[in-house]
Amino acid sequence: MWPSRDVILRERPSGLPDASTWEVLDRSVPDPAPGQFVVAVDYVSVDPGMRGWLNDVRSYLEPVAIGDAMRANAAATVVASRHDGFPVGSTVTGMFGVCEHAISDGQGVRLIDTRTAESPTWLGALGIPGMTAYVGLLRIGRLSAGETVLISAAAGAVGSVAGQIAKAMGCTVVGLAGTEEKRQWLLDLGFDHAIDYRSENVSRALRGVAPQGVDVFFDNVGGEILDAGLANLARGARIVLCGAVSSYNSTTLPPGPRRYMSLLVARASMTGFVIFDHEDEFAEAEREIAGWIADGTLVARETVVDGGVDAFGQTLLALYQGANTGKLVLQVRDSTS
Amino acid sequence: MWPSRDVILRERPSGLPDASTWEVLDRSVPDPAPGQFVVAVDYVSVDPGMRGWLNDVRSYLEPVAIGDAMRANAAATVVASRHDGFPVGSTVTGMFGVCEHAISDGQGVRLIDTRTAESPTWLGALGIPGMTAYVGLLRIGRLSAGETVLISAAAGAVGSVAGQIAKAMGCTVVGLAGTEEKRQWLLDLGFDHAIDYRSENVSRALRGVAPQGVDVFFDNVGGEILDAGLANLARGARIVLCGAVSSYNSTTLPPGPRRYMSLLVARASMTGFVIFDHEDEFAEAEREIAGWIADGTLVARETVVDGGVDAFGQTLLALYQGANTGKLVLQVRDSTS
Repeated sequence: MWPSRDVILRERPSGLPDASTWEVLDRSVPDPAPGQFVVAVDYVSVDPGMRGWLNDVRSYLEPVAIGDAMRANAAATVVASRHDGFPVGSTVTGMFGVCEHAISDGQGVRLIDTRTAESPTWLGALGIPGMTAYVGLLRIGRLSAGETVLISAAAGAVGSVAGQIAKAMGCTVVGLAGTEEKRQWLLDLGFDHAIDYRSENVSRALRGVAPQGVDVFFDNVGGEILDAGLANLARGARIVLCGAVSSYNSTTLPPGPRRYMSLLVARASMTGFVIFDHEDEFAEAEREIAGWIADGTLVARETVVDGGVDAFGQTLLALYQGANTGKLVLQVRDSTS
Repeated sequence: MWPSRDVILRERPSGLPDASTWEVLDRSVPDPAPGQFVVAVDYVSVDPGMRGWLNDVRSYLEPVAIGDAMRANAAATVVASRHDGFPVGSTVTGMFGVCEHAISDGQGVRLIDTRTAESPTWLGALGIPGMTAYVGLLRIGRLSAGETVLISAAAGAVGSVAGQIAKAMGCTVVGLAGTEEKRQWLLDLGFDHAIDYRSENVSRALRGVAPQGVDVFFDNVGGEILDAGLANLARGARIVLCGAVSSYNSTTLPPGPRRYMSLLVARASMTGFVIFDHEDEFAEAEREIAGWIADGTLVARETVVDGGVDAFGQTLLALYQGANTGKLVLQVRDSTS
């Protein structure tokens, strides 16, 4: 038996999650049966999309049920195993949830090589966020060398990888971020332009730095940011709808993009995607991104928060306040101990 | 010299055009120089998109200039010619404007065969509206046999052709229209379902008739109709943005589609297009549509308004009030006289 403190969804939030949303319960994970293994969770990925999983509505994944452990991608170490593919000591990622120990039959679990990158990077640039950036830009956005690319939430987990991929492809890249520090970081990463959306009029700033308009707009934010992008499309532009973090905690359906008819004038498209449909492309994406990390083309950055599962609630709130640069992960245990 | 009464843009309207928008001026058209010809205009096409041409803003065409004759597609008869391609007596379509006579060098002018169909049809099902329906559904919407198609403004010039093309392709077709009479007409045309958007909750009605969701939504309307479609998308749906007639006369930018994030959940796209980019496909579209008209698969219908160029202003208003079924044309002269 493996003791585990699990973060349980106690109550669906209205607006921002709060103390009443979560409950930390002591549970125990059984020893593995044949074909199973037990992991100790090292890091939990804290994702903007998590808020959507708390609503009792149809979406791209089932809602988390009341009383269930919060769904989360995690990096973990196998501590007991009766599964040949996952021997004790191997490091893995999987949807283990916000917990200390979990049991698995290996479904959806990937072995990771911590010589290529540390575990947190396997939740970021080499994980779902990196896959999302790669598939979104190249497949959904059909990005070509030399195009002008706009990325919102560009200092976030997905945006920072997307912008660097676009630079690696020889594009002109404009990033939007919410602090001067993040703006500076984007420039350090090689972004051609970075706009602080809290202190500048984004639409006007875009006209200045991308007077010919934007060919691909990778949008993670929605709201006014999406409208500013719509107002600055090049002909034939592709908007990649990756998320709408500006509205995830809204209690009412927020206004839609008023400038959507720019799609007609610009002969442009706006396309949504869900990364889990593209698993057959993950191997290629991982190989490419790992190569860019190895040769220094791409900087993988994580903001690692300490505090174990008890800190999950406040860490998720910090995400929506923009506290992270790069991928936000919660450290559940010190895997070096 | 050929006397012509021309409808001139006197003043840009705010909201609906009114009496101060237009002025009818007596002008005269010179005799043709070598390579030119003069036409007498028989019918003028009255289009929803005309309202956009009156605004002094960047769009897919230049605004009509104050003091210029109103831009319009028209069917006309050559009455004087020094151009071998357009002998006297030939019937043509071209952007001659709202006027009685016009001079041309043949640029953008097409010879039409009134044995295939009467002149008004060459402004409708065999004209730009028909091309728009064909290109929009097949190229932009990538329609496949057996899919479920939603058409807004389905009793209009473009919508009525689009719906019949979709039926010809073996699709299930749902049309939206604003009166019981139009709704009945759509059913007569072979639409599987027709919804009166003024008397029904469109989103709920769609759930009833297309419980699996809509694969292609050909939208001419925007506003709440677009949101109702967004709420009922099948996975992988394509929204073809053809127009937004609900907002053409708005004095402020109307609200955007609040349910746009359905594009993400449904892995769907929304794509704008401008028919004038697709002229290389017109010959194929015309041949196909003419074939469907000839074998009775497709009914071409026009609402012909009498009254000459003086009636243009009120006819355009009638269009926005939904007075027409099928293509709305203004008769400028009796071509049989």
